[in-house]
Amino acid sequence: MADLPENVRLTPDGTGVIILDQTQLPTRKVFLTLKTPEEMYEAIHALRVRGAPAIGVCAGMCLSALAHQRPQLERPAFDAWLREQADYLASSRPTAVNLSWALRRMTALLELPLPLPELLDRLEAEATAIQAEDIAMCENISRYGLSLLHPGDGVLTHCNAGPLATSCYGTGQGPLHLAAREGFPLKIFADETRPLLQGARLTAYELQQAGADVTLICDNMASLVMKNGWVQACMVGCDRVAANGDTANKIGTSGVAILARHYGIPFYVLGPTSTIDLNCPDGDHIPIEQRDGEEIRSLFYREPQAPAGVKCFNPAFDVTDHTLITAIITEKGICRPPYTQSLAALFE
Amino acid sequence: MADLPENVRLTPDGTGVIILDQTQLPTRKVFLTLKTPEEMYEAIHALRVRGAPAIGVCAGMCLSALAHQRPQLERPAFDAWLREQADYLASSRPTAVNLSWALRRMTALLELPLPLPELLDRLEAEATAIQAEDIAMCENISRYGLSLLHPGDGVLTHCNAGPLATSCYGTGQGPLHLAAREGFPLKIFADETRPLLQGARLTAYELQQAGADVTLICDNMASLVMKNGWVQACMVGCDRVAANGDTANKIGTSGVAILARHYGIPFYVLGPTSTIDLNCPDGDHIPIEQRDGEEIRSLFYREPQAPAGVKCFNPAFDVTDHTLITAIITEKGICRPPYTQSLAALFE
Repeated sequence: MADLPENVRLTPDGTGVIILDQTQLPTRKVFLTLKTPEEMYEAIHALRVRGAPAIGVCAGMCLSALAHQRPQLERPAFDAWLREQADYLASSRPTAVNLSWALRRMTALLELPLPLPELLDRLEAEATAIQAEDIAMCENISRYGLSLLHPGDGVLTHCNAGPLATSCYGTGQGPLHLAAREGFPLKIFADETRPLLQGARLTAYELQQAGADVTLICDNMASLVMKNGWVQACMVGCDRVAANGDTANKIGTSGVAILARHYGIPFYVLGPTSTIDLNCPDGDHIPIEQRDGEEIRSLFYREPQAPAGVKCFNPAFDVTDHTLITAIITEKGICRPPYTQSLAALFE
Repeated sequence: MADLPENVRLTPDGTGVIILDQTQLPTRKVFLTLKTPEEMYEAIHALRVRGAPAIGVCAGMCLSALAHQRPQLERPAFDAWLREQADYLASSRPTAVNLSWALRRMTALLELPLPLPELLDRLEAEATAIQAEDIAMCENISRYGLSLLHPGDGVLTHCNAGPLATSCYGTGQGPLHLAAREGFPLKIFADETRPLLQGARLTAYELQQAGADVTLICDNMASLVMKNGWVQACMVGCDRVAANGDTANKIGTSGVAILARHYGIPFYVLGPTSTIDLNCPDGDHIPIEQRDGEEIRSLFYREPQAPAGVKCFNPAFDVTDHTLITAIITEKGICRPPYTQSLAALFE
């Protein structure tokens, strides 16, 4: 993975975590070494590390690094201290499911009746395992996704679900990075993804770094790009998939799906099975986060570009109806309609 | 029209033109008095006055104002001098059709064998007539357009074709301003319209000033707003309408039309008959202006928000297929499909 952004890794001595500060991209490529719990908390809270899989990997490595800073402690004092650090880190982004999941997975090792040196080894191995599983997940999704594309295809994508959000190729953009690595030619169009511009700042950056043929467009240009015959497939990530296939993803995704349907272009959703929620019957049961209108009014919190105080509607996500989705690609395989059956089969 | 932005008017003594500097909106409301030909040229060239009808009105008033600064000249010296000023002003935006049209209409008066004082009166009357015709055009379009709406309707609009672009209510947003004036309740959603944000900077500003209920959204939020059942009609302006009804308008318009069709919402195009080009058979014959990718990369020419040098596709317009347009509203009435017949009938 040498040519992928190394967004999260342990220091050589195992007592710190090195991250790529995503908030400074694409203009500055800055690596930070996190040593104290406060530095780790701040990095997650301030979105210096972002993307559900990457947050999980980072949290596991942070807890391992902190553990390796206290080899002189004795159990059970060590256990109490590490649980305290885990609770503190978990509070940095309370709604990030992967964060608490990874920390619970780490602290579960404290149940093992091992001497501290052995326990420290197990903690580092667990953090590494979380990352290895993330890499395997990305590789599988990317391979399945790429099997749906043809050399020379145009692919339109929206928002960011690439290497920076994971430890490998990514999910929504995973096939595009695998293609770049293997010399499989694609012509990629990246929606800038207003209001926070993850497509411009992160997706275009990652694909440019990977040597891919990427063209950045404003979200409202997707229709013309499709009409011009330049797009043979759309690929996006997902934040939550309901049992019937309805998919919540970054705001604007449903519009891309409707345009794709209009122009007869297949529309693919890519994500790990962990984002499929069989307890959620359909998209009407997925809550949509509303964010501060200032994100729209002030152009990325810089100079105002709208009248002061004008009312804004700023949903972070929308739900794409399952009838608009050609296939849902997971690390376990490709699901086709009817999704109530094909998604359930993944878990049997 | 006291509550509409007075974007272009003559000074009380008739020797200058006062404009609202649109480049400083929405943060600053600055009026400029243009006296010299150089000031007038700069104001049009730098888009301080913009919108096809407003440019025509401004050009007529500028030529009248300059004429009134030279009452001591004698004909034909006066004629030669005024033609020179008209040629100079026409070069400020060579592709703006209304600019050269209005200037030709003014200089045509030089054919009249009148004494200078009478000629000066005729020039000012002609400039005023151009504005009066613009006002009548807007009033008719707005009245026809409003007849298609119901009290309480949600209306989604894109880009700017409002009062700032005309001398009255506007075209694409004309019915919304007429409604605000008459207390006809509407709930308006304004697309911000990337990359140059005319929707956020101008449309939202105008509607807020008019006391309308306007909500600003990013372009990629239109799908969710429609899905939520908040939109009963879409209304947009037009830059050029082909004989078959295919319509060129600001980039993103065709995407709005496709979403409207998907959600079963009527999609209306509004514009003066002067934008209908019966010599253009269909949208394939309308050239699309490509603009500098820096408009996308640098967020309105401020701090970069995309990787340096990343390729961009930045079309200024797109073409909406006539099959997606419910009706085309002009100052002469409402045209319905088949447009090849209904549009041609306007000119009979």
